[in-house]
Amino acid sequence: MNYCSNCGQQLTYCTPPDDDRPRYYCEACRTIHYQNPKIVVGCIPEWEGKILLCRRAIEPRYGKWTLPAGYLENGETVAAGAARETYEEARATVEKLTPYALYNICYVNQVYFMFRAHLKDTRFEPGDESLEVELFAEDEIPWDDIAFRVLQETLIQYFKDRPAGKFPFYMGEIFSNDLEKV
Amino acid sequence: MNYCSNCGQQLTYCTPPDDDRPRYYCEACRTIHYQNPKIVVGCIPEWEGKILLCRRAIEPRYGKWTLPAGYLENGETVAAGAARETYEEARATVEKLTPYALYNICYVNQVYFMFRAHLKDTRFEPGDESLEVELFAEDEIPWDDIAFRVLQETLIQYFKDRPAGKFPFYMGEIFSNDLEKV
Repeated sequence: MNYCSNCGQQLTYCTPPDDDRPRYYCEACRTIHYQNPKIVVGCIPEWEGKILLCRRAIEPRYGKWTLPAGYLENGETVAAGAARETYEEARATVEKLTPYALYNICYVNQVYFMFRAHLKDTRFEPGDESLEVELFAEDEIPWDDIAFRVLQETLIQYFKDRPAGKFPFYMGEIFSNDLEKV
Repeated sequence: MNYCSNCGQQLTYCTPPDDDRPRYYCEACRTIHYQNPKIVVGCIPEWEGKILLCRRAIEPRYGKWTLPAGYLENGETVAAGAARETYEEARATVEKLTPYALYNICYVNQVYFMFRAHLKDTRFEPGDESLEVELFAEDEIPWDDIAFRVLQETLIQYFKDRPAGKFPFYMGEIFSNDLEKV
């Protein structure tokens, strides 16, 4: 961040008047340019005990498997965002979205909010950002080829909860993107 | 948003290449300036059946009562953010934060994430943004003088859940800031 998006002058990085931490600040028009964490929304799409995963056609982690997830957009609810991402990545329609887990990823300023969801039917195919889309039973999950640690942990937690049929809301934190040994 | 924060050139508002919705876009350096919802974190601080509320010393809603809540900062977890806001507004320390509710407020691009929490002790006093801080029993809550609809709904839901002693994670949406009749 170099220039003020309001007036175009050069920014300084300092603690603005009446604030308690450094921000990008415009001394010309006195605009404080706050930077805040972004929300990533996604879901675990279920169909008859299987889970829908997408193989990424984009970097980072090209070729690795992921749950559908992406940045929440302005103007949409977290559930609508998770459903939109599922359609974009897997051309699949999900319903009955239930809040399931929140993961803090402070080192990249992200908060993941994940739902459990039901596939409406078995219509799915790779969207522009996917190479393949496939249903996996628990013993078929490609644990060593999951794209992101946060989604691997979501799946681990999900299969831990599933035998009891209870999915209490879970909150966790991710400190690195290295996959956990499963 | 008028100028590119990267190179200082004037921005255009258009659908960037390979995108599906209009964004602020710099044709000079090709930076897309994404705008995403912000997370507001807060809590319901409990002490022996009473709830800690703060009377606002700032606009908007000067003089109205609020639960401690504010924007999540980069680098902090949602629970840490809720605890920080509680300290800033009420000089109170909360512990045992349990995720309780998420509210979408799409028309202002905010997502509220609220915890239940226990006050560590009865030390509290107004922070810089508060006129007063006080513990309220259920029948003392100033329902007509709550600052924000989202926090009023959080409290309504909380007192609805409390008799059963179960607080399943709740998800809701707020469409206006008018207070509900209680």
